[in-house]
Amino acid sequence: MSAFPAALSRAQDMVEARLQDEINTLPQSDVRDAMAYAAQGGKKLRGFLVLESARLHGIPPTIAVQAACAIEAIHAYSLVHDDLPAMDDDDLRRGQPTVHVKWNEATAILVGDALQALAFGLLARDDAAPTPAARLDLIASLAQASGGAGMVLGQALDIAAETAATPLTLPQITALQAGKTGALIAWAACAGARMAQSETKALAAYAHALGLAFQIADDILDVEGDATLAGKRLNKDAEAGKATFVSLLGLEGAKARATSLVAEAQDALAPYGDQAQILRDAAQFVIARRN
Amino acid sequence: MSAFPAALSRAQDMVEARLQDEINTLPQSDVRDAMAYAAQGGKKLRGFLVLESARLHGIPPTIAVQAACAIEAIHAYSLVHDDLPAMDDDDLRRGQPTVHVKWNEATAILVGDALQALAFGLLARDDAAPTPAARLDLIASLAQASGGAGMVLGQALDIAAETAATPLTLPQITALQAGKTGALIAWAACAGARMAQSETKALAAYAHALGLAFQIADDILDVEGDATLAGKRLNKDAEAGKATFVSLLGLEGAKARATSLVAEAQDALAPYGDQAQILRDAAQFVIARRN
Repeated sequence: MSAFPAALSRAQDMVEARLQDEINTLPQSDVRDAMAYAAQGGKKLRGFLVLESARLHGIPPTIAVQAACAIEAIHAYSLVHDDLPAMDDDDLRRGQPTVHVKWNEATAILVGDALQALAFGLLARDDAAPTPAARLDLIASLAQASGGAGMVLGQALDIAAETAATPLTLPQITALQAGKTGALIAWAACAGARMAQSETKALAAYAHALGLAFQIADDILDVEGDATLAGKRLNKDAEAGKATFVSLLGLEGAKARATSLVAEAQDALAPYGDQAQILRDAAQFVIARRN
Repeated sequence: MSAFPAALSRAQDMVEARLQDEINTLPQSDVRDAMAYAAQGGKKLRGFLVLESARLHGIPPTIAVQAACAIEAIHAYSLVHDDLPAMDDDDLRRGQPTVHVKWNEATAILVGDALQALAFGLLARDDAAPTPAARLDLIASLAQASGGAGMVLGQALDIAAETAATPLTLPQITALQAGKTGALIAWAACAGARMAQSETKALAAYAHALGLAFQIADDILDVEGDATLAGKRLNKDAEAGKATFVSLLGLEGAKARATSLVAEAQDALAPYGDQAQILRDAAQFVIARRN
Protein backbone atom coordinates (compact mmCIF):
# COMPACT_ATOMS: atom_id res chain seq x y z
CA MET A 1 0.00 0.00 0.00
CA SER A 2 1.22 3.48 -0.83
CA ALA A 3 2.56 5.67 1.94
CA PHE A 4 1.27 8.69 0.04
CA PRO A 5 -2.22 9.16 1.57
CA ALA A 6 -0.82 9.15 5.11
CA ALA A 7 1.99 11.54 4.13
CA LEU A 8 -0.52 13.91 2.49
CA SER A 9 -2.80 13.74 5.52
CA ARG A 10 0.12 14.50 7.90
CA ALA A 11 1.16 17.43 5.71
CA GLN A 12 -2.41 18.76 5.63
CA ASP A 13 -2.74 18.65 9.41
CA MET A 14 0.67 20.20 10.03
CA VAL A 15 0.35 23.01 7.50
CA GLU A 16 -3.26 23.75 8.46
CA ALA A 17 -2.40 24.03 12.18
CA ARG A 18 0.69 26.16 11.64
CA LEU A 19 -0.94 28.50 9.15
CA GLN A 20 -3.87 29.09 11.49
CA ASP A 21 -1.43 29.76 14.36
CA GLU A 22 0.45 32.31 12.25
CA ILE A 23 -2.74 34.11 11.25
CA ASN A 24 -3.91 34.12 14.87
CA THR A 25 -0.83 36.10 15.93
CA LEU A 26 -2.14 39.05 13.88
CA PRO A 27 -4.20 41.76 15.61
CA GLN A 28 -7.93 41.03 15.50
CA SER A 29 -9.83 42.35 12.48
CA ASP A 30 -12.37 41.10 9.94
CA VAL A 31 -9.45 40.68 7.59
CA ARG A 32 -7.69 38.36 10.04
CA ASP A 33 -10.85 36.26 10.49
CA ALA A 34 -11.29 36.06 6.74
CA MET A 35 -7.62 35.13 6.26
CA ALA A 36 -8.08 32.19 8.64
CA TYR A 37 -11.21 31.18 6.72
CA ALA A 38 -9.49 31.43 3.34
CA ALA A 39 -6.48 29.39 4.50
CA GLN A 40 -8.68 26.57 5.84
CA GLY A 41 -9.16 23.25 4.08
CA GLY A 42 -8.15 22.39 0.56
CA LYS A 43 -5.81 19.64 -0.49
CA LYS A 44 -2.62 21.41 0.67
CA LEU A 45 -0.90 19.65 -2.20
CA ARG A 46 1.67 22.44 -2.56
CA GLY A 47 2.51 22.33 1.14
CA PHE A 48 2.86 18.56 0.91
CA LEU A 49 5.27 18.92 -2.04
CA VAL A 50 7.43 21.28 0.04
CA LEU A 51 7.57 18.91 3.02
CA GLU A 52 8.23 15.87 0.84
CA SER A 53 10.96 17.48 -1.28
CA ALA A 54 12.51 18.73 1.95
CA ARG A 55 12.55 15.19 3.36
CA LEU A 56 14.39 14.00 0.24
CA HIS A 57 17.08 16.57 1.01
CA GLY A 58 17.34 15.79 4.71
CA ILE A 59 15.45 18.90 5.87
CA PRO A 60 13.07 18.16 8.78
CA PRO A 61 9.39 19.21 8.73
CA THR A 62 10.01 21.61 11.64
CA ILE A 63 12.06 23.71 9.21
CA ALA A 64 10.15 23.01 6.00
CA VAL A 65 6.75 23.83 7.49
CA GLN A 66 7.47 27.57 7.12
CA ALA A 67 7.89 27.25 3.36
CA ALA A 68 4.92 24.86 3.19
CA CYS A 69 2.77 27.51 4.90
CA ALA A 70 4.21 30.22 2.66
CA ILE A 71 3.19 28.47 -0.57
CA GLU A 72 -0.26 27.64 0.83
CA ALA A 73 -0.69 31.30 1.84
CA ILE A 74 0.18 32.35 -1.73
CA HIS A 75 -2.17 29.72 -3.14
CA ALA A 76 -4.98 30.82 -0.80
CA TYR A 77 -4.46 34.50 -1.72
CA SER A 78 -4.63 33.64 -5.43
CA LEU A 79 -7.92 31.78 -4.93
CA VAL A 80 -9.49 34.64 -2.95
CA HIS A 81 -8.54 37.20 -5.61
CA ASP A 82 -9.41 34.83 -8.46
CA ASP A 83 -12.92 34.30 -7.03
CA LEU A 84 -13.68 38.05 -6.98
CA PRO A 85 -16.55 39.30 -9.18
CA ALA A 86 -14.07 41.18 -11.40
CA MET A 87 -12.12 37.96 -11.98
CA ASP A 88 -13.87 34.54 -12.11
CA ASP A 89 -16.86 35.65 -10.02
CA ASP A 90 -17.24 32.45 -8.00
CA ASP A 91 -19.55 32.13 -5.00
CA LEU A 92 -18.33 28.75 -3.84
CA ARG A 93 -14.85 27.49 -2.98
CA ARG A 94 -13.97 24.28 -1.16
CA GLY A 95 -17.71 23.83 -0.64
CA GLN A 96 -18.09 27.11 1.28
CA PRO A 97 -19.08 30.67 0.34
CA THR A 98 -16.12 32.57 -1.07
CA VAL A 99 -14.58 35.37 1.04
CA HIS A 100 -16.23 38.23 -0.85
CA VAL A 101 -19.62 36.51 -0.45
CA LYS A 102 -19.19 35.79 3.27
CA TRP A 103 -17.61 39.19 4.01
CA ASN A 104 -17.33 41.69 1.14
CA GLU A 105 -15.12 42.52 -1.81
CA ALA A 106 -12.93 45.02 0.05
CA THR A 107 -12.17 42.42 2.71
CA ALA A 108 -11.39 39.81 0.05
CA ILE A 109 -8.91 42.14 -1.65
CA LEU A 110 -7.18 42.86 1.67
CA VAL A 111 -7.17 39.17 2.67
CA GLY A 112 -5.27 38.29 -0.48
CA ASP A 113 -2.85 41.18 0.04
CA ALA A 114 -2.13 40.20 3.65
CA LEU A 115 -1.74 36.49 2.83
CA GLN A 116 0.90 37.38 0.27
CA ALA A 117 2.82 39.48 2.80
CA LEU A 118 2.52 36.64 5.33
CA ALA A 119 4.08 34.21 2.86
CA PHE A 120 7.21 36.31 2.37
CA GLY A 121 7.42 37.06 6.08
CA LEU A 122 7.43 33.34 6.88
CA LEU A 123 10.31 32.67 4.49
CA ALA A 124 12.41 35.40 6.09
CA ARG A 125 12.25 33.68 9.50
CA ASP A 126 15.48 32.35 10.99
CA ASP A 127 14.14 28.79 10.93
CA ALA A 128 12.71 28.80 7.38
CA ALA A 129 15.84 27.13 5.95
CA PRO A 130 19.25 26.11 7.32
CA THR A 131 21.15 29.10 5.90
CA PRO A 132 20.42 32.78 5.11
CA ALA A 133 21.41 32.14 1.49
CA ALA A 134 18.82 29.36 1.20
CA ARG A 135 16.12 31.58 2.72
CA LEU A 136 16.90 34.35 0.25
CA ASP A 137 16.81 31.85 -2.61
CA LEU A 138 13.36 30.67 -1.47
CA ILE A 139 12.14 34.28 -1.34
CA ALA A 140 13.61 35.32 -4.70
CA SER A 141 12.22 32.23 -6.43
CA LEU A 142 8.77 32.61 -4.83
CA ALA A 143 8.60 36.26 -5.93
CA GLN A 144 9.47 35.10 -9.44
CA ALA A 145 6.99 32.19 -9.41
CA SER A 146 4.07 34.19 -8.02
CA GLY A 147 4.56 37.55 -9.74
CA GLY A 148 4.33 39.15 -13.16
CA ALA A 149 6.53 36.49 -14.79
CA GLY A 150 4.75 33.56 -13.10
CA MET A 151 1.31 33.10 -11.60
CA VAL A 152 0.09 36.66 -12.20
CA LEU A 153 1.27 36.45 -15.82
CA GLY A 154 -0.77 33.24 -16.23
CA GLN A 155 -3.81 35.07 -14.86
CA ALA A 156 -3.15 38.02 -17.18
CA LEU A 157 -2.97 35.68 -20.20
CA ASP A 158 -6.19 34.05 -19.02
CA ILE A 159 -7.97 37.40 -18.91
CA ALA A 160 -6.61 38.36 -22.32
CA ALA A 161 -7.86 35.02 -23.71
CA GLU A 162 -11.42 35.84 -22.67
CA THR A 163 -11.60 38.78 -25.04
CA ALA A 164 -9.40 37.31 -27.79
CA ALA A 165 -10.98 36.83 -31.23
CA THR A 166 -9.92 33.16 -31.49
CA PRO A 167 -9.63 30.45 -28.80
CA LEU A 168 -6.15 29.68 -27.51
CA THR A 169 -3.99 27.08 -29.24
CA LEU A 170 -2.41 24.17 -27.36
CA PRO A 171 0.99 25.91 -26.99
CA GLN A 172 -0.76 29.07 -25.75
CA ILE A 173 -2.86 27.27 -23.17
CA THR A 174 0.19 25.30 -22.04
CA ALA A 175 2.09 28.58 -21.52
CA LEU A 176 -0.89 30.07 -19.67
CA GLN A 177 -1.13 27.10 -17.33
CA ALA A 178 2.62 26.98 -16.79
CA GLY A 179 2.16 30.38 -15.17
CA LYS A 180 -1.23 30.05 -13.56
CA THR A 181 -0.78 26.65 -11.90
CA GLY A 182 2.65 25.35 -12.87
CA ALA A 183 4.83 28.05 -11.32
CA LEU A 184 3.64 27.51 -7.73
CA ILE A 185 3.72 23.70 -8.07
CA ALA A 186 7.26 23.94 -9.40
CA TRP A 187 8.32 26.21 -6.56
CA ALA A 188 6.81 23.82 -4.02
CA ALA A 189 8.46 20.74 -5.49
CA CYS A 190 11.87 22.45 -5.73
CA ALA A 191 11.71 24.06 -2.28
CA GLY A 192 13.40 21.16 -0.50
CA ALA A 193 16.36 21.25 -2.85
CA ARG A 194 16.60 25.02 -2.41
CA MET A 195 16.57 24.69 1.39
CA ALA A 196 19.54 22.34 1.12
CA GLN A 197 21.17 24.55 -1.57
CA SER A 198 21.14 21.52 -3.87
CA GLU A 199 20.43 21.06 -7.57
CA THR A 200 16.72 21.56 -8.40
CA LYS A 201 16.85 19.95 -11.86
CA ALA A 202 15.18 16.58 -11.16
CA LEU A 203 12.46 18.09 -8.99
CA ALA A 204 11.85 20.85 -11.54
CA ALA A 205 11.36 18.26 -14.31
CA TYR A 206 9.01 16.31 -12.02
CA ALA A 207 7.05 19.46 -11.19
CA HIS A 208 6.83 20.63 -14.78
CA ALA A 209 5.12 17.40 -15.87
CA LEU A 210 3.10 17.21 -12.65
CA GLY A 211 1.79 20.78 -12.98
CA LEU A 212 0.61 20.21 -16.54
CA ALA A 213 -0.97 16.84 -15.60
CA PHE A 214 -2.70 18.61 -12.70
CA GLN A 215 -4.23 21.22 -14.97
CA ILE A 216 -5.32 18.68 -17.60
CA ALA A 217 -6.93 16.67 -14.78
CA ASP A 218 -8.69 19.87 -13.67
CA ASP A 219 -10.09 20.37 -17.16
CA ILE A 220 -11.25 16.72 -17.21
CA LEU A 221 -12.87 17.12 -13.79
CA ASP A 222 -14.55 20.26 -15.05
CA VAL A 223 -16.36 18.09 -17.63
CA GLU A 224 -16.73 14.78 -15.79
CA GLY A 225 -16.63 15.83 -12.15
CA ASP A 226 -19.18 16.07 -9.40
CA ALA A 227 -19.72 19.69 -8.32
CA THR A 228 -20.62 18.60 -4.77
CA LEU A 229 -17.35 16.72 -4.36
CA ALA A 230 -15.37 19.49 -6.04
CA GLY A 231 -16.97 22.12 -3.81
CA LYS A 232 -17.01 24.64 -6.64
CA ARG A 233 -18.83 25.44 -9.87
CA LEU A 234 -17.87 23.15 -12.73
CA ASN A 235 -17.92 23.35 -16.53
CA LYS A 236 -17.56 27.12 -16.47
CA ASP A 237 -14.73 27.23 -19.03
CA ALA A 238 -16.73 25.24 -21.58
CA GLU A 239 -19.78 27.43 -20.91
CA ALA A 240 -17.64 30.51 -21.47
CA GLY A 241 -16.40 29.07 -24.76
CA LYS A 242 -12.81 29.04 -23.47
CA ALA A 243 -10.30 26.62 -24.90
CA THR A 244 -9.28 23.88 -22.44
CA PHE A 245 -7.07 20.83 -22.76
CA VAL A 246 -10.28 18.82 -23.21
CA SER A 247 -11.64 21.06 -25.97
CA LEU A 248 -8.26 20.95 -27.73
CA LEU A 249 -7.32 17.28 -27.27
CA GLY A 250 -10.74 15.67 -26.77
CA LEU A 251 -11.62 13.85 -23.55
CA GLU A 252 -9.72 10.67 -24.41
CA GLY A 253 -6.77 12.60 -25.80
CA ALA A 254 -6.58 14.69 -22.61
CA LYS A 255 -6.66 11.57 -20.45
CA ALA A 256 -3.90 9.95 -22.50
CA ARG A 257 -1.77 13.11 -22.27
CA ALA A 258 -2.25 13.30 -18.48
CA THR A 259 -1.27 9.64 -18.12
CA SER A 260 1.92 10.10 -20.14
CA LEU A 261 2.80 13.25 -18.15
CA VAL A 262 2.45 11.32 -14.91
CA ALA A 263 4.88 8.71 -16.23
CA GLU A 264 7.23 11.54 -17.25
CA ALA A 265 6.98 13.08 -13.77
CA GLN A 266 7.72 9.75 -12.13
CA ASP A 267 10.71 9.06 -14.38
CA ALA A 268 12.21 12.43 -13.53
CA LEU A 269 12.60 11.27 -9.92
CA ALA A 270 15.06 8.49 -10.84
CA PRO A 271 18.02 10.24 -9.14
CA TYR A 272 16.20 9.93 -5.79
CA GLY A 273 15.59 6.15 -6.14
CA ASP A 274 13.10 4.50 -3.78
CA GLN A 275 13.13 7.51 -1.45
CA ALA A 276 10.91 9.34 -3.93
CA GLN A 277 8.10 6.74 -4.02
CA ILE A 278 5.69 9.03 -2.16
CA LEU A 279 6.20 11.77 -4.77
CA ARG A 280 5.67 9.18 -7.55
CA ASP A 281 2.40 8.14 -5.93
CA ALA A 282 1.44 11.81 -5.57
CA ALA A 283 1.72 12.19 -9.34
CA GLN A 284 -0.64 9.27 -9.81
CA PHE A 285 -3.05 10.82 -7.30
CA VAL A 286 -3.13 14.09 -9.20
CA ILE A 287 -4.86 12.50 -12.18
CA ALA A 288 -6.93 9.99 -10.15
CA ARG A 289 -8.45 12.56 -7.76
CA ARG A 290 -12.15 13.30 -7.89
CA ASN A 291 -11.91 16.87 -6.60
CA MET B 1 19.14 76.98 0.98
CA SER B 2 18.02 73.50 1.84
CA ALA B 3 19.59 70.56 0.03
CA PHE B 4 16.31 68.69 0.41
CA PRO B 5 14.54 69.56 -2.88
CA ALA B 6 17.55 68.47 -4.95
CA ALA B 7 17.91 65.26 -2.91
CA LEU B 8 14.21 64.47 -3.34
CA SER B 9 14.40 65.16 -7.05
CA ARG B 10 17.47 62.89 -7.45
CA ALA B 11 15.70 60.14 -5.50
CA GLN B 12 12.58 60.49 -7.66
CA ASP B 13 14.56 60.19 -10.89
CA MET B 14 16.64 57.27 -9.68
CA VAL B 15 13.75 55.26 -8.22
CA GLU B 16 11.45 56.00 -11.15
CA ALA B 17 14.04 54.85 -13.71
CA ARG B 18 15.00 51.70 -11.83
CA LEU B 19 11.42 50.68 -11.08
CA GLN B 20 10.45 51.08 -14.73
CA ASP B 21 13.51 49.02 -15.76
CA GLU B 22 12.53 46.24 -13.36
CA ILE B 23 8.94 46.16 -14.61
CA ASN B 24 10.19 46.12 -18.21
CA THR B 25 12.10 42.89 -17.62
CA LEU B 26 8.76 41.10 -17.11
CA PRO B 27 7.12 39.33 -20.07
CA GLN B 28 4.77 41.61 -21.98
CA SER B 29 1.13 41.67 -20.83
CA ASP B 30 -1.56 44.23 -20.05
CA VAL B 31 -0.66 43.69 -16.41
CA ARG B 32 2.96 44.66 -17.07
CA ASP B 33 1.90 47.81 -18.93
CA ALA B 34 -0.46 48.73 -16.11
CA MET B 35 2.24 48.05 -13.50
CA ALA B 36 4.53 50.52 -15.28
CA TYR B 37 1.68 53.06 -15.35
CA ALA B 38 0.87 52.57 -11.65
CA ALA B 39 4.51 52.93 -10.60
CA GLN B 40 4.94 56.20 -12.51
CA GLY B 41 5.02 59.62 -10.92
CA GLY B 42 4.12 60.46 -7.36
CA LYS B 43 6.33 62.06 -4.76
CA LYS B 44 8.46 58.94 -4.16
CA LEU B 45 8.80 60.17 -0.58
CA ARG B 46 9.20 56.62 0.77
CA GLY B 47 11.95 55.85 -1.75
CA PHE B 48 13.68 59.10 -0.81
CA LEU B 49 13.54 58.15 2.89
CA VAL B 50 15.21 54.83 2.10
CA LEU B 51 18.02 56.46 0.10
CA GLU B 52 18.55 59.19 2.68
CA SER B 53 18.58 56.88 5.72
CA ALA B 54 20.97 54.63 3.79
CA ARG B 55 23.30 57.58 3.19
CA LEU B 56 23.34 58.30 6.94
CA HIS B 57 24.57 54.73 7.46
CA GLY B 58 27.19 54.79 4.72
CA ILE B 59 25.18 52.67 2.27
CA PRO B 60 25.50 53.93 -1.34
CA PRO B 61 22.43 54.59 -3.54
CA THR B 62 23.49 51.76 -5.89
CA ILE B 63 22.63 49.36 -3.07
CA ALA B 64 19.78 51.26 -1.43
CA VAL B 65 17.89 51.77 -4.70
CA GLN B 66 16.56 48.20 -4.53
CA ALA B 67 14.86 48.83 -1.19
CA ALA B 68 13.70 52.26 -2.39
CA CYS B 69 12.04 50.59 -5.39
CA ALA B 70 10.60 47.87 -3.15
CA ILE B 71 8.80 50.32 -0.86
CA GLU B 72 7.54 52.35 -3.82
CA ALA B 73 6.24 49.12 -5.42
CA ILE B 74 4.36 48.32 -2.19
CA HIS B 75 3.04 51.88 -1.99
CA ALA B 76 1.92 51.77 -5.65
CA TYR B 77 0.20 48.40 -5.15
CA SER B 78 -1.66 49.76 -2.12
CA LEU B 79 -2.90 52.77 -4.11
CA VAL B 80 -4.10 50.61 -7.02
CA HIS B 81 -6.05 48.30 -4.70
CA ASP B 82 -7.27 51.21 -2.56
CA ASP B 83 -8.68 52.97 -5.63
CA LEU B 84 -10.80 49.95 -6.64
CA PRO B 85 -14.61 50.39 -6.65
CA ALA B 86 -14.94 47.95 -3.72
CA MET B 87 -12.52 50.08 -1.69
CA ASP B 88 -12.33 53.89 -2.10
CA ASP B 89 -13.72 53.88 -5.65
CA ASP B 90 -11.47 56.60 -7.04
CA ASP B 91 -11.25 57.44 -10.74
CA LEU B 92 -8.27 59.78 -10.48
CA ARG B 93 -4.80 59.28 -9.04
CA ARG B 94 -1.77 61.47 -9.55
CA GLY B 95 -3.91 63.44 -12.03
CA GLN B 96 -4.48 60.40 -14.28
CA PRO B 97 -7.25 57.79 -14.59
CA THR B 98 -6.79 55.02 -12.03
CA VAL B 99 -5.70 51.57 -13.25
CA HIS B 100 -9.16 50.00 -13.06
CA VAL B 101 -10.57 52.92 -15.08
CA LYS B 102 -7.86 52.86 -17.74
CA TRP B 103 -7.79 49.04 -17.94
CA ASN B 104 -10.29 47.10 -15.82
CA GLU B 105 -10.77 45.83 -12.27
CA ALA B 106 -9.26 42.41 -12.90
CA THR B 107 -6.09 44.00 -14.26
CA ALA B 108 -5.95 46.38 -11.29
CA ILE B 109 -6.17 43.48 -8.82
CA LEU B 110 -3.37 41.62 -10.64
CA VAL B 111 -1.22 44.77 -10.93
CA GLY B 112 -1.29 45.17 -7.15
CA ASP B 113 -0.53 41.50 -6.61
CA ALA B 114 2.43 41.54 -8.99
CA LEU B 115 3.84 44.80 -7.58
CA GLN B 116 3.85 43.25 -4.12
CA ALA B 117 5.74 40.17 -5.39
CA LEU B 118 8.18 42.48 -7.20
CA ALA B 119 8.92 44.32 -3.96
CA PHE B 120 9.93 41.19 -2.08
CA GLY B 121 11.86 39.90 -5.08
CA LEU B 122 13.92 43.10 -5.19
CA LEU B 123 14.88 42.80 -1.52
CA ALA B 124 16.08 39.23 -2.01
CA ARG B 125 18.65 40.34 -4.62
CA ASP B 126 22.32 39.92 -3.80
CA ASP B 127 22.88 43.68 -4.00
CA ALA B 128 19.86 44.81 -1.93
CA ALA B 129 21.97 45.14 1.24
CA PRO B 130 25.58 44.41 2.21
CA THR B 131 24.82 41.11 4.00
CA PRO B 132 22.29 38.26 3.69
CA ALA B 133 21.19 38.92 7.29
CA ALA B 134 20.40 42.55 6.46
CA ARG B 135 18.42 41.53 3.37
CA LEU B 136 16.37 39.07 5.43
CA ASP B 137 15.74 41.75 8.04
CA LEU B 138 14.49 44.13 5.33
CA ILE B 139 12.15 41.41 4.01
CA ALA B 140 10.81 40.33 7.41
CA SER B 141 10.19 43.92 8.48
CA LEU B 142 8.52 44.84 5.17
CA ALA B 143 6.21 41.82 5.44
CA GLN B 144 5.31 42.99 8.94
CA ALA B 145 4.84 46.63 7.92
CA SER B 146 2.73 45.91 4.85
CA GLY B 147 0.65 42.94 6.05
CA GLY B 148 -2.14 42.11 8.45
CA ALA B 149 -0.39 43.76 11.40
CA GLY B 150 0.57 46.90 9.44
CA MET B 151 -0.78 48.58 6.33
CA VAL B 152 -3.51 46.02 5.62
CA LEU B 153 -4.66 46.22 9.24
CA GLY B 154 -4.94 50.00 8.87
CA GLN B 155 -7.08 49.47 5.78
CA ALA B 156 -9.21 46.91 7.62
CA LEU B 157 -9.80 49.34 10.48
CA ASP B 158 -10.67 52.02 7.92
CA ILE B 159 -13.31 49.77 6.33
CA ALA B 160 -14.70 48.82 9.75
CA ALA B 161 -14.95 52.54 10.63
CA GLU B 162 -17.19 53.16 7.63
CA THR B 163 -19.94 50.96 9.03
CA ALA B 164 -19.33 51.75 12.71
CA ALA B 165 -22.18 53.34 14.67
CA THR B 166 -20.01 56.19 15.99
CA PRO B 167 -17.12 58.09 14.37
CA LEU B 168 -13.59 57.10 15.43
CA THR B 169 -11.95 58.72 18.42
CA LEU B 170 -8.52 60.37 18.24
CA PRO B 171 -6.67 57.30 19.63
CA GLN B 172 -8.55 55.07 17.18
CA ILE B 173 -7.79 57.21 14.16
CA THR B 174 -4.17 57.50 15.27
CA ALA B 175 -3.93 53.67 15.45
CA LEU B 176 -5.61 53.37 12.06
CA GLN B 177 -3.17 55.78 10.46
CA ALA B 178 -0.18 54.19 12.16
CA GLY B 179 -1.04 51.12 10.09
CA LYS B 180 -2.36 52.65 6.92
CA THR B 181 0.35 55.26 6.31
CA GLY B 182 2.76 55.08 9.23
CA ALA B 183 4.03 51.53 8.83
CA LEU B 184 5.45 52.00 5.33
CA ILE B 185 6.95 55.40 6.20
CA ALA B 186 8.59 53.87 9.26
CA TRP B 187 9.97 50.98 7.23
CA ALA B 188 11.38 53.40 4.65
CA ALA B 189 13.03 55.65 7.23
CA CYS B 190 14.55 52.69 9.11
CA ALA B 191 15.71 50.84 5.98
CA GLY B 192 19.16 52.44 5.92
CA ALA B 193 19.86 51.40 9.51
CA ARG B 194 18.65 47.88 8.74
CA MET B 195 20.93 47.66 5.71
CA ALA B 196 23.88 48.52 7.95
CA GLN B 197 22.55 46.25 10.72
CA SER B 198 22.50 49.27 13.02
CA GLU B 199 20.10 50.52 15.68
CA THR B 200 16.82 51.78 14.17
CA LYS B 201 15.62 53.65 17.28
CA ALA B 202 16.29 57.27 16.25
CA LEU B 203 14.98 56.79 12.72
CA ALA B 204 11.91 54.94 14.04
CA ALA B 205 11.09 57.86 16.36
CA TYR B 206 11.59 60.29 13.47
CA ALA B 207 9.33 58.19 11.23
CA HIS B 208 6.64 57.77 13.85
CA ALA B 209 6.20 61.53 14.21
CA LEU B 210 6.69 62.11 10.48
CA GLY B 211 4.05 59.54 9.50
CA LEU B 212 1.45 61.06 11.77
CA ALA B 213 2.31 64.60 10.61
CA PHE B 214 2.00 63.37 7.04
CA GLN B 215 -1.48 62.01 7.62
CA ILE B 216 -2.66 65.10 9.48
CA ALA B 217 -1.32 67.19 6.58
CA ASP B 218 -3.29 64.95 4.21
CA ASP B 219 -6.47 65.60 6.15
CA ILE B 220 -5.76 69.34 6.08
CA LEU B 221 -5.10 69.21 2.31
CA ASP B 222 -8.34 67.30 1.93
CA VAL B 223 -10.14 70.37 3.29
CA GLU B 224 -7.94 73.22 2.06
CA GLY B 225 -6.25 71.71 -0.97
CA ASP B 226 -6.57 72.22 -4.68
CA ALA B 227 -7.89 69.08 -6.40
CA THR B 228 -6.03 69.92 -9.61
CA LEU B 229 -2.71 70.15 -7.80
CA ALA B 230 -3.48 67.06 -5.73
CA GLY B 231 -4.45 65.08 -8.81
CA LYS B 232 -7.15 63.24 -6.91
CA ARG B 233 -10.62 63.76 -5.47
CA LEU B 234 -10.60 65.83 -2.27
CA ASN B 235 -12.88 66.20 0.71
CA LYS B 236 -14.20 62.66 0.34
CA ASP B 237 -13.74 61.72 4.00
CA ALA B 238 -15.75 64.70 5.21
CA GLU B 239 -18.42 63.98 2.61
CA ALA B 240 -18.56 60.38 3.84
CA GLY B 241 -18.95 61.63 7.41
CA LYS B 242 -15.69 59.93 8.43
CA ALA B 243 -13.70 61.20 11.38
CA THR B 244 -10.42 62.86 10.38
CA PHE B 245 -7.76 64.70 12.34
CA VAL B 246 -9.39 67.93 11.15
CA SER B 247 -12.88 66.88 12.30
CA LEU B 248 -11.47 65.81 15.67
CA LEU B 249 -8.95 68.60 16.33
CA GLY B 250 -10.38 71.43 14.22
CA LEU B 251 -8.38 72.97 11.37
CA GLU B 252 -6.17 75.12 13.60
CA GLY B 253 -5.72 72.33 16.15
CA ALA B 254 -4.69 69.93 13.38
CA LYS B 255 -2.18 72.44 12.04
CA ALA B 256 -0.69 73.00 15.50
CA ARG B 257 -0.43 69.24 16.07
CA ALA B 258 1.29 68.73 12.71
CA THR B 259 3.77 71.49 13.51
CA SER B 260 4.66 70.02 16.89
CA LEU B 261 5.05 66.55 15.33
CA VAL B 262 7.48 67.96 12.79
CA ALA B 263 9.56 69.43 15.63
CA GLU B 264 9.42 66.06 17.38
CA ALA B 265 10.54 64.29 14.20
CA GLN B 266 13.42 66.71 13.77
CA ASP B 267 14.54 66.37 17.40
CA ALA B 268 14.64 62.59 17.08
CA LEU B 269 17.45 62.94 14.55
CA ALA B 270 19.85 64.49 17.08
CA PRO B 271 22.15 61.42 17.12
CA TYR B 272 22.91 62.01 13.43
CA GLY B 273 23.88 65.67 13.90
CA ASP B 274 24.21 67.88 10.82
CA GLN B 275 24.27 64.85 8.54
CA ALA B 276 20.50 64.55 9.01
CA GLN B 277 19.62 68.07 7.86
CA ILE B 278 18.00 66.81 4.66
CA LEU B 279 15.69 64.52 6.66
CA ARG B 280 14.85 67.44 8.98
CA ASP B 281 13.92 69.55 5.96
CA ALA B 282 11.89 66.64 4.61
CA ALA B 283 9.77 66.71 7.76
CA GLN B 284 9.08 70.40 7.20
CA PHE B 285 8.17 69.71 3.58
CA VAL B 286 5.63 67.08 4.60
CA ILE B 287 3.39 69.66 6.23
CA ALA B 288 4.17 72.49 3.79
CA ARG B 289 3.36 70.52 0.61
CA ARG B 290 0.39 71.46 -1.52
CA ASN B 291 -0.25 67.98 -2.94
